[in-house]
Amino acid sequence: MFPKEFDDVVKGIRSMRIRGAGLIARKVAEALKIASESIETTEPTLYMESLKKAAKKLVGTRPTAVSLPNALRYVLYRAKRRYEAGASVEEMKETVTSAAEEFIESSLNAVKRIGEIGAGRIEDGDVVLTHCNSQTAIEILRHAHSEGKTINVFITETRPRYQGRLTAEVLSKEGIPTTLVVDSAARYFMPRIDKVVVGADAVAANGAVVNKIGTSIIALAAHEARVNVIVGAETYKFSPKTLLGALIEIEERPTEEVVSRKWLTTNRKVSVQNPAFDVTPPEYIDTIITEAGVVSPYSIMFLVKDRFGWAYGEEEPWE
Amino acid sequence: MFPKEFDDVVKGIRSMRIRGAGLIARKVAEALKIASESIETTEPTLYMESLKKAAKKLVGTRPTAVSLPNALRYVLYRAKRRYEAGASVEEMKETVTSAAEEFIESSLNAVKRIGEIGAGRIEDGDVVLTHCNSQTAIEILRHAHSEGKTINVFITETRPRYQGRLTAEVLSKEGIPTTLVVDSAARYFMPRIDKVVVGADAVAANGAVVNKIGTSIIALAAHEARVNVIVGAETYKFSPKTLLGALIEIEERPTEEVVSRKWLTTNRKVSVQNPAFDVTPPEYIDTIITEAGVVSPYSIMFLVKDRFGWAYGEEEPWE
Amino acid sequence: MFPKEFDDVVKGIRSMRIRGAGLIARKVAEALKIASESIETTEPTLYMESLKKAAKKLVGTRPTAVSLPNALRYVLYRAKRRYEAGASVEEMKETVTSAAEEFIESSLNAVKRIGEIGAGRIEDGDVVLTHCNSQTAIEILRHAHSEGKTINVFITETRPRYQGRLTAEVLSKEGIPTTLVVDSAARYFMPRIDKVVVGADAVAANGAVVNKIGTSIIALAAHEARVNVIVGAETYKFSPKTLLGALIEIEERPTEEVVSRKWLTTNRKVSVQNPAFDVTPPEYIDTIITEAGVVSPYSIMFLVKDRFGWAYGEEEPWE
Amino acid sequence: MFPKEFDDVVKGIRSMRIRGAGLIARKVAEALKIASESIETTEPTLYMESLKKAAKKLVGTRPTAVSLPNALRYVLYRAKRRYEAGASVEEMKETVTSAAEEFIESSLNAVKRIGEIGAGRIEDGDVVLTHCNSQTAIEILRHAHSEGKTINVFITETRPRYQGRLTAEVLSKEGIPTTLVVDSAARYFMPRIDKVVVGADAVAANGAVVNKIGTSIIALAAHEARVNVIVGAETYKFSPKTLLGALIEIEERPTEEVVSRKWLTTNRKVSVQNPAFDVTPPEYIDTIITEAGVVSPYSIMFLVKDRFGWAYGEEEPWE
Amino acid sequence: MFPKEFDDVVKGIRSMRIRGAGLIARKVAEALKIASESIETTEPTLYMESLKKAAKKLVGTRPTAVSLPNALRYVLYRAKRRYEAGASVEEMKETVTSAAEEFIESSLNAVKRIGEIGAGRIEDGDVVLTHCNSQTAIEILRHAHSEGKTINVFITETRPRYQGRLTAEVLSKEGIPTTLVVDSAARYFMPRIDKVVVGADAVAANGAVVNKIGTSIIALAAHEARVNVIVGAETYKFSPKTLLGALIEIEERPTEEVVSRKWLTTNRKVSVQNPAFDVTPPEYIDTIITEAGVVSPYSIMFLVKDRFGWAYGEEEPWE
Amino acid sequence: MFPKEFDDVVKGIRSMRIRGAGLIARKVAEALKIASESIETTEPTLYMESLKKAAKKLVGTRPTAVSLPNALRYVLYRAKRRYEAGASVEEMKETVTSAAEEFIESSLNAVKRIGEIGAGRIEDGDVVLTHCNSQTAIEILRHAHSEGKTINVFITETRPRYQGRLTAEVLSKEGIPTTLVVDSAARYFMPRIDKVVVGADAVAANGAVVNKIGTSIIALAAHEARVNVIVGAETYKFSPKTLLGALIEIEERPTEEVVSRKWLTTNRKVSVQNPAFDVTPPEYIDTIITEAGVVSPYSIMFLVKDRFGWAYGEEEPWE
Repeated sequence: MFPKEFDDVVKGIRSMRIRGAGLIARKVAEALKIASESIETTEPTLYMESLKKAAKKLVGTRPTAVSLPNALRYVLYRAKRRYEAGASVEEMKETVTSAAEEFIESSLNAVKRIGEIGAGRIEDGDVVLTHCNSQTAIEILRHAHSEGKTINVFITETRPRYQGRLTAEVLSKEGIPTTLVVDSAARYFMPRIDKVVVGADAVAANGAVVNKIGTSIIALAAHEARVNVIVGAETYKFSPKTLLGALIEIEERPTEEVVSRKWLTTNRKVSVQNPAFDVTPPEYIDTIITEAGVVSPYSIMFLVKDRFGWAYGEEEPWE
Repeated sequence: MFPKEFDDVVKGIRSMRIRGAGLIARKVAEALKIASESIETTEPTLYMESLKKAAKKLVGTRPTAVSLPNALRYVLYRAKRRYEAGASVEEMKETVTSAAEEFIESSLNAVKRIGEIGAGRIEDGDVVLTHCNSQTAIEILRHAHSEGKTINVFITETRPRYQGRLTAEVLSKEGIPTTLVVDSAARYFMPRIDKVVVGADAVAANGAVVNKIGTSIIALAAHEARVNVIVGAETYKFSPKTLLGALIEIEERPTEEVVSRKWLTTNRKVSVQNPAFDVTPPEYIDTIITEAGVVSPYSIMFLVKDRFGWAYGEEEPWE
Repeated sequence: MFPKEFDDVVKGIRSMRIRGAGLIARKVAEALKIASESIETTEPTLYMESLKKAAKKLVGTRPTAVSLPNALRYVLYRAKRRYEAGASVEEMKETVTSAAEEFIESSLNAVKRIGEIGAGRIEDGDVVLTHCNSQTAIEILRHAHSEGKTINVFITETRPRYQGRLTAEVLSKEGIPTTLVVDSAARYFMPRIDKVVVGADAVAANGAVVNKIGTSIIALAAHEARVNVIVGAETYKFSPKTLLGALIEIEERPTEEVVSRKWLTTNRKVSVQNPAFDVTPPEYIDTIITEAGVVSPYSIMFLVKDRFGWAYGEEEPWE
Repeated sequence: MFPKEFDDVVKGIRSMRIRGAGLIARKVAEALKIASESIETTEPTLYMESLKKAAKKLVGTRPTAVSLPNALRYVLYRAKRRYEAGASVEEMKETVTSAAEEFIESSLNAVKRIGEIGAGRIEDGDVVLTHCNSQTAIEILRHAHSEGKTINVFITETRPRYQGRLTAEVLSKEGIPTTLVVDSAARYFMPRIDKVVVGADAVAANGAVVNKIGTSIIALAAHEARVNVIVGAETYKFSPKTLLGALIEIEERPTEEVVSRKWLTTNRKVSVQNPAFDVTPPEYIDTIITEAGVVSPYSIMFLVKDRFGWAYGEEEPWE
Repeated sequence: MFPKEFDDVVKGIRSMRIRGAGLIARKVAEALKIASESIETTEPTLYMESLKKAAKKLVGTRPTAVSLPNALRYVLYRAKRRYEAGASVEEMKETVTSAAEEFIESSLNAVKRIGEIGAGRIEDGDVVLTHCNSQTAIEILRHAHSEGKTINVFITETRPRYQGRLTAEVLSKEGIPTTLVVDSAARYFMPRIDKVVVGADAVAANGAVVNKIGTSIIALAAHEARVNVIVGAETYKFSPKTLLGALIEIEERPTEEVVSRKWLTTNRKVSVQNPAFDVTPPEYIDTIITEAGVVSPYSIMFLVKDRFGWAYGEEEPWE
Repeated sequence: MFPKEFDDVVKGIRSMRIRGAGLIARKVAEALKIASESIETTEPTLYMESLKKAAKKLVGTRPTAVSLPNALRYVLYRAKRRYEAGASVEEMKETVTSAAEEFIESSLNAVKRIGEIGAGRIEDGDVVLTHCNSQTAIEILRHAHSEGKTINVFITETRPRYQGRLTAEVLSKEGIPTTLVVDSAARYFMPRIDKVVVGADAVAANGAVVNKIGTSIIALAAHEARVNVIVGAETYKFSPKTLLGALIEIEERPTEEVVSRKWLTTNRKVSVQNPAFDVTPPEYIDTIITEAGVVSPYSIMFLVKDRFGWAYGEEEPWE
């Protein structure tokens, strides 16, 4: 019913060809815009129904994604408000188009903007600890460095996949002094650290942050020494389901990331567990830096509503 | 001046042919016994001087060792007491011989005894977390298992050298169900853990425990969830220098343990740090299990004096 | 001036015939709707004045009730917005009627909805501790059970009136395995507990929860062991007075609930105190589950405003 | 271009003739009103441009002030909304005039209103500790006293400038029993204290409170003993820059406040540092009392938006 | 082999006719004295063998008792020292007789002495909270009162057996103002409390205190508010087995103490658990008051050795 | 009865001509030696009685002193042991003389020895915070500096008498970089501090340290940031009375130290309180450095007994 480009997005997400929280979100906004423009009616109610149908199709492509429903919500909420205010289809289409474009641009700029805002919290001379290979954390450090601040960065190697090495490579190429250490040494080095800066895979309704395994124990060690933990997270990382009670499921990844297949064969009775993420409770987080500004983890919902216009208890706009 | 067997021990320790806290301690006790028996005088004062000379030579072989001076102290303290009580050389020699043999036997049995005592604190059904590859921790778990208790053991792999894998192999061969996880997942799994059991490389005068890097952050996570941390440590692991103000130096190990030489060459600007140990403060430790019984970390000094007869502020018995 | 049904509600609340936070709130919304429909004027200003007069009468019936003013605020706030937007009396009446009905329906469904949302946070295999006899806590557990999750529930007997026994009866009839323990054993059993689920009598502006005496010490013990505390609370439990500085008064109940009259007579010099509630500070609460979704206690105000449209610092809509 | 009264405000703030957070804020609101009334156009877009120009001039007079941009934001935000709703210049002027007057009145009444609201949290018989010489804290205590509550106040002398003595004078003149103690005795007296009440110089986006040096260590000692800390802060004390990542700079004051010039000359090698403020993290603060009501420090942003209508991530209304 | 009076004690303890930690300990010391006096030999080694045989018989009468082995240890340790010093049987008999008498007297006076010492830590005007019906706690309060100090005592009723009521009766008869509250109200009243005073059933090697169920949650609430917890414990309450790794088993008492048999029959599916004691970790205890003086829980072992002369790791003196 | 030099000491202490914990202790040891030498008997029992009489006289000169009874105990305990072993008066006199001299020498060297031992815990590059003007703290810093370590010292001015200025003068004259700050800024500067080093006026049986007002709040702030607190305390600072239940009384000093007499006259209704000391609980102290070695505050009793030979529960040796 909808144009081919729309269907391409649906298929692309389903087949995992389109990946990454940011890209998925932008593609979905784009697809909704395409769908909107293709709807042939002048009857507002019919238009809204078609639009919701498009949204529902998109939601179904990846039911566990966090950024996808946020993109839809951003656009649909604005359309709905216009609809309720009695706007014409023409007007609603304009709203959808501009909201989708706004969202896409904001998403594209989010990491850069988080870098600018977050850099404000890095002081000249700071020694920063980061974990894994987070785009937002790197951007904050890069921006602070580009402002002429002298910083030193400790990076945990981030087992099992050693993404910390990538971060060390990237930052040292920028001319930032870096030190690589094993994950479990985080507490050992904490007395030298001024701030911990990490990214986020998802943020829950109560302010808890889901991120790479190890983040929560590092945040705990930072808290113990009263070192502030700063999380860089795009607003579309907020997990809408948690608002309605759902717990965020932690992905269990292949055991081969932890030990070789050979070792596993030799030691069959040893079980290996490899959770990809853990949950850092809000009391160990000082601030979350989003592209829309700095926020306490406890009031993340306030920001989300401000961005996505989504009321508490209200049903999803595509229902 | 002293027999060849004595000199062999001196050389063996110096050249690091004789290694391991337990072996060094026993060899040193043995050497002191040999020296004692070789002293040819009937004049108690001359005998004591010779004995101290032997002790001093042994102390000099490895000035940073922890177990070595404890072995000497154990034997010398007893000789000194006899000397002060006006004993003959013959009597003192007997004392030295039997004290040395007592120490050696106690040291040989220490791990086994720690296993027996520590197993008393493991309950049927317990899920235990251990870190690295500690003889005492393994013995505690093995003994609990041999008593018919059903236990499950989570083992952190222990970067950079993966000693946790060895522990998993050993315990699973004993028929104990084991699960291997990355170090940074310790907090993630903590809600399932009933007790943390680890070993010790050294124990300081204030009750702090020096052990494999990562121990202190795991102990912190255990403390956060009020999971008891049990440390298995032979009494000769007590660090005498800390009593006189010295801090325990943390060995920095080769960077090649953390990243390959090739990676280091490609990423020259990245610094790598590889501390071998960290320090767990006494407030995160529930009990220390020694071969002489269970003790609070805060009263470790009491036990040490009870064993090594070494008075506070008193000069070393070989001075 | 207003119809008899309106006066009946006024009298019913005053005489305490109409009881219970939920029922009072719904009756008040109903009464305001009746009053609104009976106002005979086409002049918006006169209509608003009459409506406020009705509201004021209702507020006066139980000055300490928490749910009552929230019901009025829900309806009046919507009427006021219409009035300010220049609506006709006819339109305002429609608004009042539909707002009242909306509120009533939402209130009727609140406990059920809290059960659905809260059950999302209960995991298969969870051992849950609950205190007293809370409708919302029971509904959360019942719903989790009905979803096929295996749960076990520990229930504190809840002195002095043993409401915990009722909870045990209700849940065990549903087929949920339950264990009854004395209140002071909460910390003893905490290592086996995965989550604490309780209800709320009132929620204050800073996120503190007023609930049955004992709730705060159980929450403290849960916090000590990092066991999450989940509070089920209908949105109309928010205490508006706390926003304006008032402390929630804790009701002191008859001493006969604690000891028999006879004991009191024999032991005249012993004083007995029997506070009905205590206050759990927000740092011991993980999430509050409302019919409108999950919220951090610290951002409860955000949710309240979202529901009741009541601005900070604004005078009450009936003033 | 704008009237002389407008320029007078610009000059007055620049020259520091106009001082104090409250006065600056009110003068700026007044000046914007004057500017608005002087704009001669009927073209809404031109009017808005002129108004923004006036605002920009005012912002430039004291770039680090906290209250100044809040005053502008309060007024401009309302004008902007009208503009977007298609209002005429006449209508916008009315809006600006009434918003400015509203803001001025609210600011004038803020301290008094904080006193009324905050007094609600002081109970009969309370022993209160206060630090420095805060208008809002004094007003809260004065109001509680005027309500007939018996209170006792401990006051820290507040080195280096002994403002605590002023507070003691003021309160004791009101008939409130006061006790003056040295700053470092705060923990010693804490077991006798029921509440700590202090003011604020600025409040950051994450809920941290900037106030007189010493506030944070007193708040820490209060937290240790679970004594609630109440902060009295006018809403215009919120620091907008912190939302965009900036850290609040702590003013370093003259060393002569700490030691005499003579002492400094005699002891040249001794460095003296004299920071004027420190930062109290939100976890040590129970509630912030504003003129608009009671709020948790973690949801301060919610209140700010409610008052100043300033959306997250939105550019300043004068840009 | 031993006199009838000896056998009477053996039987009396076995049949539970002789009960109570203090009485058992004294009877056992008495019996050992009787046995010693009846041994007919002049050969020290034979004497020691007989004495140990007597001790072993006594140990076997109640293997889980805590005070029993401590009494034996007190006497035997002194005999053994004499034996090792080459004393005659005559001399050893004297030692055993006087040690047994010393122990008995010290035990008889222990509660009184704890009252005297503990009263030193109660200050005039203190409000004290106590739990259950502890002899030592009552004696401390009684002694403080008899010294003319004004004290007020809050008493938790102590479910399931309401021993707190007995304490209230006893103290109020002494003229001490008392207030009875439900157990779960301990945290509610904590801000008014200056000290918590409780007894102990046993003290473990790491300083943990085993006492009536509820003690540990009250101690936790005291710790939260930095209210000192004082434990009154006779030295013979130290549990020797914990030194050798054993955990103290918590007695599970009849469910009829919690609910009536009738209720249980009606609600068959509800399980009831009724642990008699819980374990308070040493970090929540300020001091332990013994008849030998004040001690930190962490150094309880030091005191025990000082009293019972029992070396770490040494086998029991009767082995 | 005793020589004039003995009486001179008695008078000197009574009249406060002899002041300072160290001096008093040494004078008392000296006086006991003089008394011992003057006793004219060959009957051991008579000698002991006379010696006790002398001790009792000395104890009575300053009943609240802490070091005085420790000096007596040191000497008498050794005499008593000899007496019990059946020594002659001649032998006991020798013992008293040498014990007194030993004590005096040890006391004279105590501060220096604490400096040497404590310096071992200061690392090159450390930034240290100290409070007041403590001899032991200064000696630790001086010794660390003399070992060639680069250290920086922050000093709190220490109201009301500004003893921190003296410390700044002394240390800066030694060439140590110093920074003077107001007391309440301790938490502000804590993130830059590596260690806190302070002295002690008395140490209690449970490990609590009595020191200059302000010590405990600084220790709290150090603990919050996990900065280790090191206390330098001569062993004779242990308070024997605390072992027997007594609380250490906190001296209240003249109000003129806090405000001028004039201010007090003008503000008669303002009360001023000026406690000289406060109590730091053991959990905020990492180690106590004594002249006899490093000790955990929790095991201070162990060390005291080791030095002063004073058994728990034993009556004072002069009784």
